[in-house]
Amino acid sequence: MSAHGTAEDAVLGDLGEAGVLEAILPSAPRSRAVTLGPGDDAALVAAPDGRVVATTDVLVEGQDFRRDWSSGADVGWKAAAQNLADVAAMGAFPTALLVGLAAPPALPVAWARDLVEGLTACCEPWDVGLAGGDLSAADQVVVSVTALGDLRGGEPVLRGGARPGDVLALAGVLGHSGAGLALLAEGLAGSEAVADGLLAAALVAHRRPAPPLGAGPAARVAGAHALMDVSDGLLRDAGRIAAASGVVLDLDESALDVDHPLLVAVARVLDEGVEPRERCLRWILVGGEDHGLLAAFAPGTAVPEGFRVIGTVRDADEGPSVLVDGRPLTAFGGGFDHFS
Amino acid sequence: MSAHGTAEDAVLGDLGEAGVLEAILPSAPRSRAVTLGPGDDAALVAAPDGRVVATTDVLVEGQDFRRDWSSGADVGWKAAAQNLADVAAMGAFPTALLVGLAAPPALPVAWARDLVEGLTACCEPWDVGLAGGDLSAADQVVVSVTALGDLRGGEPVLRGGARPGDVLALAGVLGHSGAGLALLAEGLAGSEAVADGLLAAALVAHRRPAPPLGAGPAARVAGAHALMDVSDGLLRDAGRIAAASGVVLDLDESALDVDHPLLVAVARVLDEGVEPRERCLRWILVGGEDHGLLAAFAPGTAVPEGFRVIGTVRDADEGPSVLVDGRPLTAFGGGFDHFS
Repeated sequence: MSAHGTAEDAVLGDLGEAGVLEAILPSAPRSRAVTLGPGDDAALVAAPDGRVVATTDVLVEGQDFRRDWSSGADVGWKAAAQNLADVAAMGAFPTALLVGLAAPPALPVAWARDLVEGLTACCEPWDVGLAGGDLSAADQVVVSVTALGDLRGGEPVLRGGARPGDVLALAGVLGHSGAGLALLAEGLAGSEAVADGLLAAALVAHRRPAPPLGAGPAARVAGAHALMDVSDGLLRDAGRIAAASGVVLDLDESALDVDHPLLVAVARVLDEGVEPRERCLRWILVGGEDHGLLAAFAPGTAVPEGFRVIGTVRDADEGPSVLVDGRPLTAFGGGFDHFS
Repeated sequence: MSAHGTAEDAVLGDLGEAGVLEAILPSAPRSRAVTLGPGDDAALVAAPDGRVVATTDVLVEGQDFRRDWSSGADVGWKAAAQNLADVAAMGAFPTALLVGLAAPPALPVAWARDLVEGLTACCEPWDVGLAGGDLSAADQVVVSVTALGDLRGGEPVLRGGARPGDVLALAGVLGHSGAGLALLAEGLAGSEAVADGLLAAALVAHRRPAPPLGAGPAARVAGAHALMDVSDGLLRDAGRIAAASGVVLDLDESALDVDHPLLVAVARVLDEGVEPRERCLRWILVGGEDHGLLAAFAPGTAVPEGFRVIGTVRDADEGPSVLVDGRPLTAFGGGFDHFS
């Protein structure tokens, strides 16, 4: 028996709903904003702004994560991180999460507890608490997360406000999660080479992305015209700003960190006939899940700490699109789509 | 091609994420409270109270619904209804929903559109709008819903406030959903007998439960000591109030509507050696998913419109529990548990 009073090899079906909740809820994150947490019909979360920012994401085993590639704690961390990033991408401060877990009765209770501990590890530094949840049985593990946030009196920063002449800036990293995924896909995660610090860091970047959450509100305060979370790949997400704003985004390849040591290290391990630089550029442009924040600022704005300029916003002469160094890029796919 | 420009037999995999959203989002509910809906990183929902009520539920195909027993619209309705009921059970007014849909690529787009139309049919009378959503691929259909609500300056009504001497009152029906489920489980849903108005009504009660949402805020305004949504069966949910409040709830069998014509009509169709009255009582006590609201009011309170008195609150001499006519009931199971 563990400290929780649960046999270490217990599965969800051994404990029933109430027993599972008793085993996992003590690990859940708490925050000042969650004034009434799980346990009643609904929770109560502070919304001092008088408006609440809300977003939801579903992670499905086999589709969005693999249990042999990520631990329960990794999945919990990532589920939290990607939702908190969406809140930050409005310029808001996250306050609370609600989590639904559907899972096979044969899932180890320890995995579910790890999931909650991963959520907590991601949430606590940002004072984000668990406001509620639900458990159900399913054939595969499905984690649904809703995140709430507060704008503290500011106006939300949308995708549609980029203007020709603006500078395009990014907070966070590009391609690191994609590089880590490549290591896993090639079966190299357990290899000796991954004892190397940079390769191990790529795996962490994939399993536990660390969105620059503070950069969202900072961009809002600095007057950002547009802001979004880069989750499906830079080309695809920049394309969304371009479409919503009716502009062209021109990325500066020299600013994209194609030579980042982490990317180069992974590309060299994988290299079999593909130029390492091409691999790095592909991770940067179409690899998703780094959850950086992409923003457009008026020309001359001092971009807030954590952001670096990676391009400019131009007039859409022939329809909104994304260019790299002034040229259209057709060699790369369109980023991630669950149904394609 | 339909009016939506989608082939009637298209499946999710034919359209991709963006195409599916284009096909289903126009049917989504709108409300005054949702000031920024789906389409950006997150939505914005009015929370004039300065606090937001939040709750989440996951519905899994095969576990919480069957596609051969319920249409997409039925599932959408039910997913909305059970979450709105949880908001009402705090004494709050629902304002918005967020919906995650994980589904096989082979799911017909028409089913997903029906799902959204069912959500909308349930939400619009209450001015509840869609604030956001997410799509993912999965082996079975999983619908996760988060509902938000506003207390309009009032205090939430919890489960733990029932006091000895209080009257116990219920808004909504008991056992109707369970009776409808029994018709489906016995394969009678398509039979001629179900042309009968009462049997058809039982099916509707199961497929599209109609929680008395207005009764939640009314109970709060009337000073209810405790309030909850009856979703897992009266015995189990009353047991939760009893446990949280440290009291005994004594139900008055004569007030439970055991002779309700709908229940009796279904029981008679099913009767094979089981007393119809026993079936009715079982649906009432352990059949869930009617989403009535159970409240405790101070003695002498005029219970608000829509509520009827069904019992009393007593001192917990030997631990909190639920009695019927003063006697413990051990013949019935404990209500619904996903993992048992």
